[in-house]
Amino acid sequence: MTPQPSTGAQSMVRTLVACGVDVCFANPGTSEMHFMDALDTVPGVRGVLGLFEGVVTGAADGYARMADRPAATLLHLGPGLANAAANIHNARRARSPMVNIVGEHASSHLQHDAPLTSDIAGIARPFSDWVHTVAGAGTAAADTARAVRAARSAPGQIATLILPADAAWSAAGDVAGPLDVPALAPADDAALRQAVAVLRSGEPTAIVMTGLALREAPLQVAGRIAAATGAQLLAQTSNGRVARGAGRVEARRIPYAVDAALAFLAPFRHLILVGAKAPVAFFAYPGKPSVLTPRGCSIHQLATAEQDGPAALQALADALDASHVQPVLPPAWPDDPAADGPLNPATIAAVVAELLPDNSIVADESVTTGRDFFRLTRSARPHDWLQVTGGAIGCGIPLACGAAIACPDRKVINLEADGSAMYTVQGLWTQARENLDVVTVVLNNRAYATLAKEMENVGIPRPGPKALAMIELQRPAIDWMAVARTFGIPGLRATTVAEFRRHLQAAVRERGPMLIEVQC
Amino acid sequence: MTPQPSTGAQSMVRTLVACGVDVCFANPGTSEMHFMDALDTVPGVRGVLGLFEGVVTGAADGYARMADRPAATLLHLGPGLANAAANIHNARRARSPMVNIVGEHASSHLQHDAPLTSDIAGIARPFSDWVHTVAGAGTAAADTARAVRAARSAPGQIATLILPADAAWSAAGDVAGPLDVPALAPADDAALRQAVAVLRSGEPTAIVMTGLALREAPLQVAGRIAAATGAQLLAQTSNGRVARGAGRVEARRIPYAVDAALAFLAPFRHLILVGAKAPVAFFAYPGKPSVLTPRGCSIHQLATAEQDGPAALQALADALDASHVQPVLPPAWPDDPAADGPLNPATIAAVVAELLPDNSIVADESVTTGRDFFRLTRSARPHDWLQVTGGAIGCGIPLACGAAIACPDRKVINLEADGSAMYTVQGLWTQARENLDVVTVVLNNRAYATLAKEMENVGIPRPGPKALAMIELQRPAIDWMAVARTFGIPGLRATTVAEFRRHLQAAVRERGPMLIEVQC
Repeated sequence: MTPQPSTGAQSMVRTLVACGVDVCFANPGTSEMHFMDALDTVPGVRGVLGLFEGVVTGAADGYARMADRPAATLLHLGPGLANAAANIHNARRARSPMVNIVGEHASSHLQHDAPLTSDIAGIARPFSDWVHTVAGAGTAAADTARAVRAARSAPGQIATLILPADAAWSAAGDVAGPLDVPALAPADDAALRQAVAVLRSGEPTAIVMTGLALREAPLQVAGRIAAATGAQLLAQTSNGRVARGAGRVEARRIPYAVDAALAFLAPFRHLILVGAKAPVAFFAYPGKPSVLTPRGCSIHQLATAEQDGPAALQALADALDASHVQPVLPPAWPDDPAADGPLNPATIAAVVAELLPDNSIVADESVTTGRDFFRLTRSARPHDWLQVTGGAIGCGIPLACGAAIACPDRKVINLEADGSAMYTVQGLWTQARENLDVVTVVLNNRAYATLAKEMENVGIPRPGPKALAMIELQRPAIDWMAVARTFGIPGLRATTVAEFRRHLQAAVRERGPMLIEVQC
Repeated sequence: MTPQPSTGAQSMVRTLVACGVDVCFANPGTSEMHFMDALDTVPGVRGVLGLFEGVVTGAADGYARMADRPAATLLHLGPGLANAAANIHNARRARSPMVNIVGEHASSHLQHDAPLTSDIAGIARPFSDWVHTVAGAGTAAADTARAVRAARSAPGQIATLILPADAAWSAAGDVAGPLDVPALAPADDAALRQAVAVLRSGEPTAIVMTGLALREAPLQVAGRIAAATGAQLLAQTSNGRVARGAGRVEARRIPYAVDAALAFLAPFRHLILVGAKAPVAFFAYPGKPSVLTPRGCSIHQLATAEQDGPAALQALADALDASHVQPVLPPAWPDDPAADGPLNPATIAAVVAELLPDNSIVADESVTTGRDFFRLTRSARPHDWLQVTGGAIGCGIPLACGAAIACPDRKVINLEADGSAMYTVQGLWTQARENLDVVTVVLNNRAYATLAKEMENVGIPRPGPKALAMIELQRPAIDWMAVARTFGIPGLRATTVAEFRRHLQAAVRERGPMLIEVQC
């Protein structure tokens, strides 16, 4: 088929389709009009509107984590990119591929410093692995193909392509095909030999994983290694996606809190890292270490994030003759319903673990209330668990949107802290518009509760009234049932275990968006 | 009084107070704990919590516009700054002074690249006039004084001070006093002589103003010049603050739409600029000019933004012997209530003009519905009118918060488009918590209506279904009464002129936050 003569924008959309990008999360403005138009005139790309840019990029992150390929985003000039940036930060830490298309003034207009003018490339750079400005309609297709290649380059990158309005609206005509994407590099033989030696030494060893190593098949391999050698399997504190649940090999997460993490890691003499970095504290605290590796414990990097962790695990299992050893698996959740009683982190987790549907997806921004949810749900039906990887809150609702669009046949449960939910609450509108199969469980403790704990951690055991006012959300209390009504989605409130159980049962039976407020 | 031994954070808060900064809009996290604590242990700074960072900086902008001095903001690391940046962009275009304090990891922690690590200075630079990282607790006070000086430097700047957690928590002890702030430079004599010659030529001339020239007294002077010479008085399309209403000299705004602006400016042979730049289109459009100055019209820069516009106007009036000429003033709004009927831009404006309280403040993010509000309310009771200066939407609700905190005795009316309101809707919570005297009038047209017009402007008269889906907000319709309930503020809906009139009457009679949805 000969391509029709087309605008730069149309050649870009054609190229996106040719390169396998078929979803565009968008919050466009005037300078992106021709790109919007091209979504109609060129078939193949689904447009999904977000009412705030953080929704757009958080959804692209959730999509990429579940689809294993990039979505495009469409953003309006520098301020739109800035609004999008916090969730780009999270995506980058998750190694999610993403192609951001950021509209820019027409090139002839820039010299006039109109009100919306800003240094878009300068804004993009701290958050992107690849930044480029389209020079004109003639190169728009080729630039798009390069952006997709950059995004897909292992292990996943943020590509930001700045599109001047005149490059979008001028005549172009060509379409570019997909470019070869650099694959994950193999792990080093020396690193493999070292890991083998460590695991044969009999000294207490943990394998710390993140990234692709936490998918079902490589975890199974890791489980064989663990069963054969006695090594423990750990996951980083924050991970983009973990395959887990009953029947799957478990990787225990390194705790968030420094003292708990130190105690957790204290037994080990060796950490073998697969995709992960040596564990460090999330924040620094007066008098506490940043490095969590115990004194005398050696670090062995079997595979970096840029190397093929699953293949390295398989090679390790082969070298250890562990490929046929049966891994230890978590038991299935006991088939007895949670007793009624007050809601607290443990009872909330018990209800979630009991009712989580098979093959569901959990988007976890549960922060303080959910600090232990991961551990407590290990025996639930098999599911994928997505976390806030970069610590920028306001990620959970958008992640759930993107995961639901990537996997329309899987239920998405978003465990969402109330304070965090308010940053990108507009994402609920996208869930309503697209009829996404997402249950948002708002863990309403009416506080930035994590900050109350952190106050003590940093050495302020008795904060004064002004500091306290900045960590409580009671004056006024947010009405979460009204939030649900705002966006036209059903809302239910639970104040007891029995209520939560009943509401979550109803939510997993139905299809479509729902919000359950859990008062805790 | 000898200062107490103190932490870096305490020395900073003491220095803020010494330098006249006594409000801190905040959305803090773990790395800002010691600064939060210092707000309690050092008296003199009011802390105001926003549930999203765009609320924080938009409020600081509104505060600065009304108080004529900077507020501080407190933001959490790179993602917090990024979330704040769109409204920093608007503030910078308004020439609002602002001191952003951005928490950073402890300096020893940075090397570990913990999840929240990012290039904060790199993020700050495109949005700031001044960026500095505190090297240690010992320099925290001096750095803060320099940040305040930078912010207050004429005509108003964005100062971003990055505060590593260890600089905040370590012992310091000193406090720094205010530094001399560079004043506005005087206008050039040659420019004054040229303006005099132009105004004496009798050729059609407009004086185009923004910034301080649009306050009451300099406008009065400009009005004398206009009456003496026949010059027309114009304001930029977007301005930080305009003093206006019955009894005040009127400066007509240059229209937003290119064709309207070209027709509006066509009569003039000379534009004398006071604080303003030569008029340019907001966006570029295929086949339309970026520059709005008519062919053959000369530009005369009487005073730049960095020069003293009000003094230049006074010198001009003196040179023209116009200082005692009576200016022409808009008439008072006729004392007859608006007739009932359907709500449309003209009838909405009529109700606002009729009921706007004396000395009120209008925060205008009315976008499409409000394109003509400014002109139609010229005869309302005297008030200040604040606009979105940088084109980054999501400014109105936060601006209203800040203006209300700067001017607790003045009613604030926020004319707010529905699409724009959703970007920073969390600001309504701050209005509720602080019991701010703000009426938010949501102009609910269930669309990004401006984009529908822009589609035609860029040459896409019949957008397809995907593009249309990105400019309508009907599926689902946002329930604005539920929005009000979410944040615990009273909400009223108006579908007719009589209803809107009754609701707005009630709102201006009461004190405290209220939301009125106007269906248009």
